[in-house]
Amino acid sequence: MERITLNYTYMSDVISDEAFMQIQPEVEQALRATLEKTGAGRDFLGWVSLPHEIPEALLQDIQQTADALRAKSDVIISIGIGGSYLGARAVIEAVQGPLAPYHEATQVLYAGHNISSWYMQDLLTFLEKKDFSLIVISKSGTTTEPALAFRILRDALEKCYGKEEAGKRIVAITDKAKGALKQLANDEGYKTFIIPDDVGGRFSVLTPVGLLPIACAGISIQEFIKGFRAMASALTAESSLKNNPALAYAAIRTLLYRQGKQIEILVNFEPALHYVSEWWKQLFGESEGKDGKALFPASVDFTTDLHSMGQLIQDGVRNLFETFIIVNKNRHTVTVPHDESNLDTLNYLEGKNLNEINFSAYQGTALAHKDGGAPSMTIELPELTPYYLGQLLYFFEIAVAVSGYLLKVNPFDQPGVEAYKKNMFALLGKPGVEQATHEIHTRLERIQPKHIVTLEK
Amino acid sequence: MERITLNYTYMSDVISDEAFMQIQPEVEQALRATLEKTGAGRDFLGWVSLPHEIPEALLQDIQQTADALRAKSDVIISIGIGGSYLGARAVIEAVQGPLAPYHEATQVLYAGHNISSWYMQDLLTFLEKKDFSLIVISKSGTTTEPALAFRILRDALEKCYGKEEAGKRIVAITDKAKGALKQLANDEGYKTFIIPDDVGGRFSVLTPVGLLPIACAGISIQEFIKGFRAMASALTAESSLKNNPALAYAAIRTLLYRQGKQIEILVNFEPALHYVSEWWKQLFGESEGKDGKALFPASVDFTTDLHSMGQLIQDGVRNLFETFIIVNKNRHTVTVPHDESNLDTLNYLEGKNLNEINFSAYQGTALAHKDGGAPSMTIELPELTPYYLGQLLYFFEIAVAVSGYLLKVNPFDQPGVEAYKKNMFALLGKPGVEQATHEIHTRLERIQPKHIVTLEK
Repeated sequence: MERITLNYTYMSDVISDEAFMQIQPEVEQALRATLEKTGAGRDFLGWVSLPHEIPEALLQDIQQTADALRAKSDVIISIGIGGSYLGARAVIEAVQGPLAPYHEATQVLYAGHNISSWYMQDLLTFLEKKDFSLIVISKSGTTTEPALAFRILRDALEKCYGKEEAGKRIVAITDKAKGALKQLANDEGYKTFIIPDDVGGRFSVLTPVGLLPIACAGISIQEFIKGFRAMASALTAESSLKNNPALAYAAIRTLLYRQGKQIEILVNFEPALHYVSEWWKQLFGESEGKDGKALFPASVDFTTDLHSMGQLIQDGVRNLFETFIIVNKNRHTVTVPHDESNLDTLNYLEGKNLNEINFSAYQGTALAHKDGGAPSMTIELPELTPYYLGQLLYFFEIAVAVSGYLLKVNPFDQPGVEAYKKNMFALLGKPGVEQATHEIHTRLERIQPKHIVTLEK
Repeated sequence: MERITLNYTYMSDVISDEAFMQIQPEVEQALRATLEKTGAGRDFLGWVSLPHEIPEALLQDIQQTADALRAKSDVIISIGIGGSYLGARAVIEAVQGPLAPYHEATQVLYAGHNISSWYMQDLLTFLEKKDFSLIVISKSGTTTEPALAFRILRDALEKCYGKEEAGKRIVAITDKAKGALKQLANDEGYKTFIIPDDVGGRFSVLTPVGLLPIACAGISIQEFIKGFRAMASALTAESSLKNNPALAYAAIRTLLYRQGKQIEILVNFEPALHYVSEWWKQLFGESEGKDGKALFPASVDFTTDLHSMGQLIQDGVRNLFETFIIVNKNRHTVTVPHDESNLDTLNYLEGKNLNEINFSAYQGTALAHKDGGAPSMTIELPELTPYYLGQLLYFFEIAVAVSGYLLKVNPFDQPGVEAYKKNMFALLGKPGVEQATHEIHTRLERIQPKHIVTLEK
């Protein structure tokens, strides 16, 4: 089996060999803190050894549960937000491709990741003519978005199938002992899976949180875990930057941040990878974006976005760098047909396949951006399969832990996520926060003058 | 009819009334340069007066063409990249909503916006069982991505229907006189529409480039244009920052850039707006990202991304600000049902509709981010209809012209987009660039040492 590699040739003029060697002890220390669980957030490092510790019986239980849901559902709705949503979606879209809605017999759709009436109404209308089931993912069962969606969709499910059959079409993934969802699952006899206490949301793709929806999409979780395992064995055993691509990636982005770069852009050339970038943005943004620090994680899909963000990356403020993800072996091959008239002048590409042309676009872009002052590195992925996706996700997990420790933050908390919720609860008049409700209304009234620009009628 | 407003109350501590007044003369000058066509890129200002100048006969021709394509197609593929793609997609998704593939009888799909074999193969497979037609959008007819896609899809169309009927299922939107696509359309007798010479790609949504795909999606282009017209009349007649929200928006983002902000995040709370953000990123990124300048345009969908990028926006580097787009009147209303057990503790929201809760999420977020040092302004859109989308897109077009002139760049060129293409053509061995082909291969061989990090097997 091949493995992921990191190519940072186009960083060589900004990352000197000396700088690379100098950061080695720091990186080693960060890796040790991760593996030995001695650093900040050490209670949430369960994901490190998860690939080797998942019981085979749990995997079989997940697979059987998924098979049973698939057998009786046209649509399986996975209800969750943030880490309870992005990992599964990243893997499912990367395996099924960007046009999955047009070819998959059993659809995995998502809910509880927004508060849009429009989205929910369209979903409810669509479900009217479908057999469907629900997966609900929430440690507490009271996170607003998924709790609202679950209440609405459970109501629709029970109206459709009656309470008893509905109960067999609901799987809850939640805390092992406490919380509203655990209680409800006990009361109603729902099938449940446990979210481990020592694995945070954004690291939870290898728990039932990610594995059940992935299995429900008909994707091999056994292959996925094998990829995780291969990477876990390799990356945790190698502390030298020169032989460990995840450490090298963490080191390079840290050195660039210390040089003053502000933005990292994750780039793909396959639309199927779009949600891997979304998952990555949470992983890095939420792990590092604290204490007034961190690179801003952005993403683009090329060549699509070469015709939107390409100009700025080539010629704008030199505060950014790129990380390309390139897939070596392609799923499909479409070749350029002959055209007698050749008015489009593309006959020189006749018989070539699009993958070769796409690869030339990547090579040409990396070189052009380097020349324009936007350095890049490239993560090479052998193939877009569950196995290699497992490798890739673990690669980024180790990288973010090390990178976060190099930044001297706790990569495993997310205190800032509470701020909007507190205000929202106060505004909604949640019982128990009456004082906050009073204060926020008073504050909103007091903010004067309002600055509103309107056109005269 | 109501109109878009701009609320920058949460900027009041970073944008003083004095700074706002001081920039007024500069803004006025920029607006004048735009309207009187005296600034850089003046040959590409045709979009300014377009809303009032589109002939009614052209609109009727577009509508009839769209009706004819819809009548005989399950799927209409719009082939284009960048500005030949994003405007139409932004409007179509904003009107049809995020689950359009699941409820639209006639689907508008896209091609020619990437070079992925996988995407193309899935599309070809899907089309095997469908009646379909093609819209091909390219000024020259030789832009690599759409030219490749058109060659492949035309081949499939001709194999399916024969050359004659295929010719009736193709509409070309291209140059009025010259270029490969114009020539081919003449030779084959395709229906054609013209891309005006004085309107650049990212400003072309109100030309046939945007209007035909929008009409093919069953959306009223008459309503869309009315919105454009209302905004064009209002925004071009008002040069005071205090009464012109587009000028105020341009002024505020410029003042923040001059204060050192590096990133603007466009935020929505409706998934249907996702592609409006993508369109906006091209509009601002490509217009301003040059000469080592510009804010980096990023986007998030809330509340989804409050659980991924929320932590960083709340607590990360204070180099960013947000621009919210809020929709006042919602398409649908889904209310929170009663639950006897109330284990999720949401009964206090019973009977409330999701729109109200979503609005509280917005209010709570804006306040929390302001407190965390991420200031924001809000564009209020009365409703998500074709009419108000027309208003919104023209609002941003005027804003980017003024903002670009304030930045002292030419907002209407995109020289940097050529750099990757030149390298790509050289790598692909395009006839006529043999010297460049030789040079790039020599250069790639000479880049030593390669910096590649691989795990030992």
